[in-house]
Amino acid sequence: MELLEALNWRYATKKMNGQAVSQDKVNIILQAVHLAPTSSGLQPYEVFVVSNPELKAKIREVAFDQSQLTDSSHVLVFAAWDNYTQQRIEQIFSHIVTTRGLPMNAMDDYKHRLLALYTNRTPAENFEHAARQAYIGFGIAIAAAAELKVDATPMEGFDNAKLDKLLALDQKGLKSVTLLPLGYRDENNDWLVNLKKVRKPKDEFITELI
Amino acid sequence: MELLEALNWRYATKKMNGQAVSQDKVNIILQAVHLAPTSSGLQPYEVFVVSNPELKAKIREVAFDQSQLTDSSHVLVFAAWDNYTQQRIEQIFSHIVTTRGLPMNAMDDYKHRLLALYTNRTPAENFEHAARQAYIGFGIAIAAAAELKVDATPMEGFDNAKLDKLLALDQKGLKSVTLLPLGYRDENNDWLVNLKKVRKPKDEFITELI
Repeated sequence: MELLEALNWRYATKKMNGQAVSQDKVNIILQAVHLAPTSSGLQPYEVFVVSNPELKAKIREVAFDQSQLTDSSHVLVFAAWDNYTQQRIEQIFSHIVTTRGLPMNAMDDYKHRLLALYTNRTPAENFEHAARQAYIGFGIAIAAAAELKVDATPMEGFDNAKLDKLLALDQKGLKSVTLLPLGYRDENNDWLVNLKKVRKPKDEFITELI
Repeated sequence: MELLEALNWRYATKKMNGQAVSQDKVNIILQAVHLAPTSSGLQPYEVFVVSNPELKAKIREVAFDQSQLTDSSHVLVFAAWDNYTQQRIEQIFSHIVTTRGLPMNAMDDYKHRLLALYTNRTPAENFEHAARQAYIGFGIAIAAAAELKVDATPMEGFDNAKLDKLLALDQKGLKSVTLLPLGYRDENNDWLVNLKKVRKPKDEFITELI
């Protein structure tokens, strides 16, 4: 299966060579994220695409100087809702019923259950839940890039608050959760490229319950 | 691209028809999860596979009686570490250096940085971080199933504490985070199968920063 080959081929690229990923490929990766499922279809996160060299350099400054942030051609920033609010949920449901050609109140029961659920939780709990949804899309982006033989480095190591300020995510009610630089491996200068991929022994990771 | 077709084809199946997914296909999905990346390669979660009808019925009881749990042939349970501990981290690094044929202390600096990081966080913070890693694998499992034309229903709606007890996850220091029943859609009886897939308008989900 293609996906398994791709997942075996990929690795968290430590050194990229500066070659640009084509816009077509970036678009396919973004489409895959856009199609990724989320809890109740609320899609409680957004993706920002950075290809401007100056802006990538500024991101690198708040991300422990990781070189992939400037040697990649595109950096995807996954940013989750800081909270589930009534307004956000109403907007999504309005879009769903419109798109499906349903009466405006067709999904009200379901919507009200969700509103009760989320508005009774703290913003911190809601943000964590939204962040998890972003990770589904993040996982699918990683798979999509690998299938296209585009290298990527999944990154959590950065100063979230500084990045939120730099990209004005805080003003949008968003909090950054992960970065995904897209580019191509520099095979001669990446210390990780030739090291064996290591995963836990399968029987310590997967258990059949009988 | 195959993945986009698959992601368009899939949906959160609401009614399955009882047909069994072949063990080969289940194994491919599990391999994909096993290959999914995690922060520092720690793989801080495990996957449990349930095909026993009685056990699936018991899971259904603690999961709001969702029929897919018994009409699927296999239920994957994603369960994250309840905490990052020194013992768990030491064990992973020991496995990494052994697999790569490195001296036992070759990765000590990196390991000590991680130990300092995680042991200074609360168990709750560590669990949340582990849960996010599980969601990367969860996303990749969803993609893998779709590429195999296997239906799946991503589920967060269940009583986590009861499931942890039922499957004795608590005794393993694990907490369930998601379920993924695998099976085949019952096209005649699934209210969702013919409804249009809805995603936010692309320009509200993806933003190019200049």
